[in-house]
Amino acid sequence: MLSIARVRALAVGALVALASLGAHALTAQEQANKDVVLAFYEAAINQKDIDAAVAHIGPKYIQHNPRAADGVEGLKSFIGGYLKKANPQLKASIKRVIVQGDLVVLHVHSVPEPGALGTALVDIFRLENGKIVEHWDVQQPVPEKLPHGNTMF
Amino acid sequence: MLSIARVRALAVGALVALASLGAHALTAQEQANKDVVLAFYEAAINQKDIDAAVAHIGPKYIQHNPRAADGVEGLKSFIGGYLKKANPQLKASIKRVIVQGDLVVLHVHSVPEPGALGTALVDIFRLENGKIVEHWDVQQPVPEKLPHGNTMF
Repeated sequence: MLSIARVRALAVGALVALASLGAHALTAQEQANKDVVLAFYEAAINQKDIDAAVAHIGPKYIQHNPRAADGVEGLKSFIGGYLKKANPQLKASIKRVIVQGDLVVLHVHSVPEPGALGTALVDIFRLENGKIVEHWDVQQPVPEKLPHGNTMF
Repeated sequence: MLSIARVRALAVGALVALASLGAHALTAQEQANKDVVLAFYEAAINQKDIDAAVAHIGPKYIQHNPRAADGVEGLKSFIGGYLKKANPQLKASIKRVIVQGDLVVLHVHSVPEPGALGTALVDIFRLENGKIVEHWDVQQPVPEKLPHGNTMF
C-alpha cells in the first residue's frame, strides 16, 4: 500500500527521468511517420515503383521541389520520367533521418550511376494521418574536391 | 491510500498518454540544443559576429560544407570573408526547425541583398554537451519560375 504522497513522488520522479533523457523516444505516430517515409523513399527513388510510392501519398501532395509539378500527378511524372526513363540506375542512400512531430527529414546521397559523385539532398516530408501530404527539398552537386578531409555527409 | 495494482494502472495510463501524443515534447537537452543553434545562426549569419558565434562551438567543429575549411578557423574565415566582406547585407530567415536527439535541422531562405531570389538551404548541426561540434548543409539557388504555385518553402 502506498500513500498519495508517495505516488506523487514516484510520478514526479518518472517525469524528471523522462525529461532528462538527452534524446526523446519517438512517439508511436512519429515512428509510423518515419516508417512511411522510408518505405516511400525506397519505393519512389530506388525501386521507381509508381504504384508503391503513391500508396503512401495522402489526399493532397503539396510539392515545393522547384522542378516537379504539384500533386500526385507531378510525382508520377517525376518517377516515370526523371527516374525510370532518364536515370534508371539512380540510387539514393539515406545518411541520416531526423523526426519531430509531423515532419521527417532525410539527408541523402543520390548517385545517378555507379562511380558518379552524385548529389547531396535534404528532403523534408510532412505527414497527416499516416500519409505524406507535403514535400520540400534542397539539392547540391557533390564536388570532386573539398577543402577538408571530411565528406559532404 | 492506493494499492500497488492501482499505482501500476496509473503509471501505465500515464505512459500510454505520453506515447499517444502525435508530437514528442522536446527533452530539456533537445530544447537547449535548439536554443543554442538558433542563437548561433543569428550571431553567425545575420549579425556576422565571429566572437558571439564561436562561443557556441565545442572543442571541435567538423565541417562538411564543401566550400568551408574545417574547424573553428574555417568558420571564422567564412564569417569574416564570405559574410562580412562579400555579402554584408545577407539575411537568413529560418522557415522551420526540426530537432531529434543531438541533431538540429534548419530549413532556411538566405537572401544576399534585398530583392534577390536567394538560396534555399538546409543546415544540420550536431551538438555535444550544449555546444555545436559538427555541421552539414545543402544549398540550392531559388529559381525565378516554379512549375507550381507553391514556393520552395
